[in-house]
Amino acid sequence: MSDKSKINPSKPRKIRDVAQWDLETDVAVVGFGGAGGCAAIEAADAGSNVTLFEVASDNGGSTAMSSAEIYMGGNGGTRVQQACGFEDSTEDMITYMMMSAGPQADEAKIRNYCENSTDHFQWLVDIGIPFKDSFHKERAIMCLTDDGLLYTGSEKAYPFAQQAKPCPRGHNLHVEGDNGGPLFMKIVAENVDRREAITVAYETRVLTLIVDEEDSVVGLVIRQNQKELNVRTHQGVILCAGGFVMNEEMIRKYAPMLTAGNTPIGNPGDTGTGILMGMSVGGAAINMHEGFITLPYYPPASMTKGIVINDQGQRFINEDVYHGRLGAFVVRQQSERVYFILSVEQYGDYERVSYMGSGVAGTGETVQELEEELELREGTLQQTIKVYNEDCVSGKDTQCHKAAEWLEPLVPPLVALDITPGRGSFLPFFTLGGLDTLPTGEVVDPQRDVIPGLYAAGRTACGVVRRAEGYSSGMSVGDASFSGRLAGKQAAARARS
Amino acid sequence: MSDKSKINPSKPRKIRDVAQWDLETDVAVVGFGGAGGCAAIEAADAGSNVTLFEVASDNGGSTAMSSAEIYMGGNGGTRVQQACGFEDSTEDMITYMMMSAGPQADEAKIRNYCENSTDHFQWLVDIGIPFKDSFHKERAIMCLTDDGLLYTGSEKAYPFAQQAKPCPRGHNLHVEGDNGGPLFMKIVAENVDRREAITVAYETRVLTLIVDEEDSVVGLVIRQNQKELNVRTHQGVILCAGGFVMNEEMIRKYAPMLTAGNTPIGNPGDTGTGILMGMSVGGAAINMHEGFITLPYYPPASMTKGIVINDQGQRFINEDVYHGRLGAFVVRQQSERVYFILSVEQYGDYERVSYMGSGVAGTGETVQELEEELELREGTLQQTIKVYNEDCVSGKDTQCHKAAEWLEPLVPPLVALDITPGRGSFLPFFTLGGLDTLPTGEVVDPQRDVIPGLYAAGRTACGVVRRAEGYSSGMSVGDASFSGRLAGKQAAARARS
Repeated sequence: MSDKSKINPSKPRKIRDVAQWDLETDVAVVGFGGAGGCAAIEAADAGSNVTLFEVASDNGGSTAMSSAEIYMGGNGGTRVQQACGFEDSTEDMITYMMMSAGPQADEAKIRNYCENSTDHFQWLVDIGIPFKDSFHKERAIMCLTDDGLLYTGSEKAYPFAQQAKPCPRGHNLHVEGDNGGPLFMKIVAENVDRREAITVAYETRVLTLIVDEEDSVVGLVIRQNQKELNVRTHQGVILCAGGFVMNEEMIRKYAPMLTAGNTPIGNPGDTGTGILMGMSVGGAAINMHEGFITLPYYPPASMTKGIVINDQGQRFINEDVYHGRLGAFVVRQQSERVYFILSVEQYGDYERVSYMGSGVAGTGETVQELEEELELREGTLQQTIKVYNEDCVSGKDTQCHKAAEWLEPLVPPLVALDITPGRGSFLPFFTLGGLDTLPTGEVVDPQRDVIPGLYAAGRTACGVVRRAEGYSSGMSVGDASFSGRLAGKQAAARARS
Repeated sequence: MSDKSKINPSKPRKIRDVAQWDLETDVAVVGFGGAGGCAAIEAADAGSNVTLFEVASDNGGSTAMSSAEIYMGGNGGTRVQQACGFEDSTEDMITYMMMSAGPQADEAKIRNYCENSTDHFQWLVDIGIPFKDSFHKERAIMCLTDDGLLYTGSEKAYPFAQQAKPCPRGHNLHVEGDNGGPLFMKIVAENVDRREAITVAYETRVLTLIVDEEDSVVGLVIRQNQKELNVRTHQGVILCAGGFVMNEEMIRKYAPMLTAGNTPIGNPGDTGTGILMGMSVGGAAINMHEGFITLPYYPPASMTKGIVINDQGQRFINEDVYHGRLGAFVVRQQSERVYFILSVEQYGDYERVSYMGSGVAGTGETVQELEEELELREGTLQQTIKVYNEDCVSGKDTQCHKAAEWLEPLVPPLVALDITPGRGSFLPFFTLGGLDTLPTGEVVDPQRDVIPGLYAAGRTACGVVRRAEGYSSGMSVGDASFSGRLAGKQAAARARS
């Protein structure tokens, strides 16, 4: 059987074309990843019957593939933040997330996320997610210990630290190694199993939505055991079907920036069908051009002491930012080559621990020698390093505002890594656009009128995080679990048809 | 009467809700600017009855407000190109336009545009558009003489010139001063008036589309003399209602980059309703994040000999590019200040002729003095100018690849203009996203299935030009007139319902 349905997810089925209803449920959730699981739990706990439809043979989605760090804080701090000695303010968290999202920030959504963030922490604890009250000091992309808290963004870096008091908000599950995602989904799935009101249908593809004469969403068409079935939903459909990172045509059309990347991050179901189904009934897809694209240049954390230069031998970013911010700035350079310049000591155990995989482009016993080897114009790298080293001594990076703790003069011999996009470095990416929703999870049209009966959460919706340059680890699973819960509650509160 | 209709353009009217048809036409064209006018002419010439609906009291749209340069060439050259001694190749034109559009290029559309460009020139001549066979040598944003041809893009600049043989393709109407737009629309309107098959309805707002049971577009709802009327279209509706530059909410939601600008360029009707109506019936809106944003830094052309620096005292762009490309690079800098540095001679009659209006941030009898006055880190601007001046002497800009003809050492005394976005410079902008269409003008859904009965052209569609960094003057009116014609022909060829 072909994986491509003849039914176009961009065209809903009309109720008059439904010969019979094969199944019925109060709430249908499309996709059993982090968002879908949390949506189902909340809808069931509010008294609705729920059916979870998952195209794969098991639950998990992209959440299970992730580290499942969860970005939480504000309100004086979560239990873990407080235990580790951090008092977090809601306003600082809002300011940081507003700066992260940039001009396209959804302030209502960010405020709601931040104001309810410690409550969300408690909800997660209540369903059984374990967090240890310990702080992981090392700068890391993911926490390989079982520590409960770490910095996972650009909170301590320019320009964020100048406007919002830094606080670590990345909450890591109490488990050794990079195993947060599987544990998170195991616990969510156990919660789903425990609720009799929830039915899970695996290996079931949702083909399209069903609308009534008023264009309200009243059901969906599924394919199960090679049969096409009409499912009547009495309260609503919640789309939690992921993003569109696996759909090359959509990437090129909507998020061309991401074509600079080389490794899509997501599960095979991230083909955009959830977003397309929402659009088909008038839902607005927004922020579709944005995505996360990164050069995961640490570990080793000592890389942060190096400098990044373009083909003019110039620095252009403070190297202590979150790796996704650096990646976004690298991708947008008009530069034929981009290098990471390090001393041998800073290079350290790069070869053993790096995820980035960038090759050595040159080495030099002197700066001049490296400059020549990289075929940079004479004097340019020498000048950049002269200025940088003077700034390291004075403790103030006048050029790119890297924090003092990372300022260490570059003393030859030096190594240059080639981090030019397209020349071998690992450049993972995923999408950050989706259906516009109210903080409740209700999908809205371009005029922000609600589409009755339709909800979205997780990556199918456009959530609190909107830009690569402002991303922090933990914002995706944080948003997925939080927005899933809200959509589940909202759908369950709707009058049954 | 409120200007805001209670009818939401994001929701079409259903045929079952149409009590009576008040008017009928074969083809309805929404918007009488350059695209709409050309669409009406072609549809009428193909045998259809056409009604043009225009919300304003007169025709013109944004075309009439523009210089109406028209980007044409290839195929050995237009009559004007050939007379001026330029032989243009279709492949060079395609290469240039593909580079301009970047990864989101629509190759089929660009090829069609280029391959038929000299024919389009002839069609324009045939309807009476006058072009003089003369070449305007001076670098200019708009041609204030009556010359027929000039360079209006980055054809001679890096990185374009390295891949496509440069050729001037900006065709300027035979009229003195910046009066191309009014003349273009006057001639188009005369052609419309001359055709009995075309009816023009001014002061008529199109509120929403009407769809039949199969979601084909079969008409539209208009408001005329404070009455709401249903218009039956037997062949199709062509949306030529401009972009969304006047809709602040849409700009923030879809094209946040443009919030850096300060002057929207367009007519008051550019509120995005054409795009919203297309989306309401399943049309895909694409490239919505992109727009043209510029620092119109020449005239005087001598500005091109200056350098642009960020707050690290670094150059980041070859200053001989089209002004829109420089604007796009300025906007994306992570830099608290951006300056244009010039010698007094290069500054020339800036104050008298500049459109940019940037204030003087500092002057210096020496580079060091200017560096201090601008509070740049000591040695940075000195180094940049040292390297630049050496490169000028050698005739090769090793850093930013500005063409040799513009390389002239910066000799103090120097002037610095503050071109930081938000600090007084003129930063005009407009949108470059719209409905996805086939080269025929048929509007398609996200799966690229055609929406029956719906067409779009001009800025309501997403045309051949897709990025600020690749824009050239003449691409908008070129695309509007060409895409309007194609949509008109295509609608007229459709079987009448």
